[in-house]
Amino acid sequence: MENKIRVGIVGYGNLGKGVRKAINQNKDIELEAIFTRREVSKVSENDNLMVHISKIGDFKDRIDVMILCGGSATDLVEQGPMVAEMFNTVDSFDTHAKIPSYFEKMNEVSTASGNLSIISVGWDPGLFSLNRLLGNAVLPNGKDYTFWGKGVSQGHSDAIRRIQGVKNGIQYTIPIEAALERVRSGENPDLTTREKHLRECFVVAEEGADKTKIEEEIKNMPNYFSDYDTTVHFITEEELKREHSGMPHGGFVIRTGETGEGTKQRIEFSLDLGSNPEFTSSVLVAYARAIAKMAKEGKKGALTVFDVPFGYLSSKTPAELRKELL
Amino acid sequence: MENKIRVGIVGYGNLGKGVRKAINQNKDIELEAIFTRREVSKVSENDNLMVHISKIGDFKDRIDVMILCGGSATDLVEQGPMVAEMFNTVDSFDTHAKIPSYFEKMNEVSTASGNLSIISVGWDPGLFSLNRLLGNAVLPNGKDYTFWGKGVSQGHSDAIRRIQGVKNGIQYTIPIEAALERVRSGENPDLTTREKHLRECFVVAEEGADKTKIEEEIKNMPNYFSDYDTTVHFITEEELKREHSGMPHGGFVIRTGETGEGTKQRIEFSLDLGSNPEFTSSVLVAYARAIAKMAKEGKKGALTVFDVPFGYLSSKTPAELRKELL
Repeated sequence: MENKIRVGIVGYGNLGKGVRKAINQNKDIELEAIFTRREVSKVSENDNLMVHISKIGDFKDRIDVMILCGGSATDLVEQGPMVAEMFNTVDSFDTHAKIPSYFEKMNEVSTASGNLSIISVGWDPGLFSLNRLLGNAVLPNGKDYTFWGKGVSQGHSDAIRRIQGVKNGIQYTIPIEAALERVRSGENPDLTTREKHLRECFVVAEEGADKTKIEEEIKNMPNYFSDYDTTVHFITEEELKREHSGMPHGGFVIRTGETGEGTKQRIEFSLDLGSNPEFTSSVLVAYARAIAKMAKEGKKGALTVFDVPFGYLSSKTPAELRKELL
Repeated sequence: MENKIRVGIVGYGNLGKGVRKAINQNKDIELEAIFTRREVSKVSENDNLMVHISKIGDFKDRIDVMILCGGSATDLVEQGPMVAEMFNTVDSFDTHAKIPSYFEKMNEVSTASGNLSIISVGWDPGLFSLNRLLGNAVLPNGKDYTFWGKGVSQGHSDAIRRIQGVKNGIQYTIPIEAALERVRSGENPDLTTREKHLRECFVVAEEGADKTKIEEEIKNMPNYFSDYDTTVHFITEEELKREHSGMPHGGFVIRTGETGEGTKQRIEFSLDLGSNPEFTSSVLVAYARAIAKMAKEGKKGALTVFDVPFGYLSSKTPAELRKELL
């Protein structure tokens, strides 16, 4: 094998750890360093790959692509442009409303520095976006639907945990099967928020807390729960740890449309994920490969998944892909 | 709107007719001419768009992309290189074993003529191939499965109709639900041919024909039926016309894999098509748009779906796509 693609990880939470595991599954990619803002000696996996982020500049000639594993809310808006001044980057920026401005910034910095960056990689935004685009392009006379879950929503879990008397809690978003079936039938229903998803909460109450009040407060919380049918289960901390410490997720992108004289057609893409961060990490690593190859060909600036031919995601040559997978 | 993309159709069977309908659904594309080998006055839809194929050279400056709608077995191997000498092309070449050599030929001709061609566009090869590639790239530690149907297999229907005593007939390939469920569960089963698909035949027998003999002959036909559980129903010609004149098809591409320490992940893509040729045509038209744009940017030679960023499939601008679909 020719030279491996040398990757760096910036940020070592669930996503960064997932990227490390994903790199291990790809023989053409090697992990060069992991950059953290924490004191290196205090990171639990402290090993010879851990480097304090202040030394990132020393790695300019040693890393082909940096995978940015920070959160969108505060980390990426700062780290993205900072790292893109020195490296090709891949990130999973997912604040939908801010994607256009973040793209502009990353495009400006990457173009100026002569690097290549790709933003908003993962499954939504990411693979789901690709399928929305595909559905719209192939069936222009149609309608698309996205359902999420069954999976843990971090935002909704946080909202529960902020309620007085709640010690811990987790929230699952669950797509409603009857709505999925109506969509699949091709009737093109207009579905309300309540018709598409259920919300199921598992809550650990503090000793002596008023459970009825907690349940009411959850169910009536505007934006988060009041527009949904929500169920609340009170459980022990032990049960929460034992049964709800995975981070499953998934969902469905469905495009139903008509061709010719009313011929019904349906395209469906779905994910069933045992671990949301590990899957997102696997997508990031595949796109890191693409970015390394496209940068090598001289491409500069910022991209999204819409700009990357799938062939670049694979370690196989175009001739192998045509022979084996077409 | 700026100038429309001007498309020509070569070959006016089910696929060519589907392309005409699909173009009608896309405001940025217009149909310039339909080329046929038949005498123009004898084509039932004879209208001002019909042109005898011998005059195709006259349209060199009037057509941006030619969509080749002939069959793979004999038409495309001849027409592809012939048309690619003068035009950008899109075709649905689907003889898997011959894809590498056909690609080489089309690449050679298109490169020499300064045109851009894309081969093997449709859903399999095509959208299914893209999903096989994606699954392999994102979940390298995994296994992929393709199921076809429920849908009409032209090859198997033809095989039935060649049997003595058979007046007419049609064959449906049906994926076996139990096998799909085993795959979805992530157990990574090794499935035999018989476990994956059923074959269901609807046969119109000639008067006085020996139905028992016909049924036996179908069920024991090597390659086509003997490795499958096959059911045979005898029906009337009227019922065949009434109930089985659609051309439905579809199928499933499933990738199951593991990330990290045994975390199960699944990616699934499926199609449920009321009309196979109309859907394939819709895919061809979306890729014709992509080829027109890429050719305008100066790209030359031959491509497959693996080489085309999804963004090119849409009539929207990259900024619109980032804002609306990412």
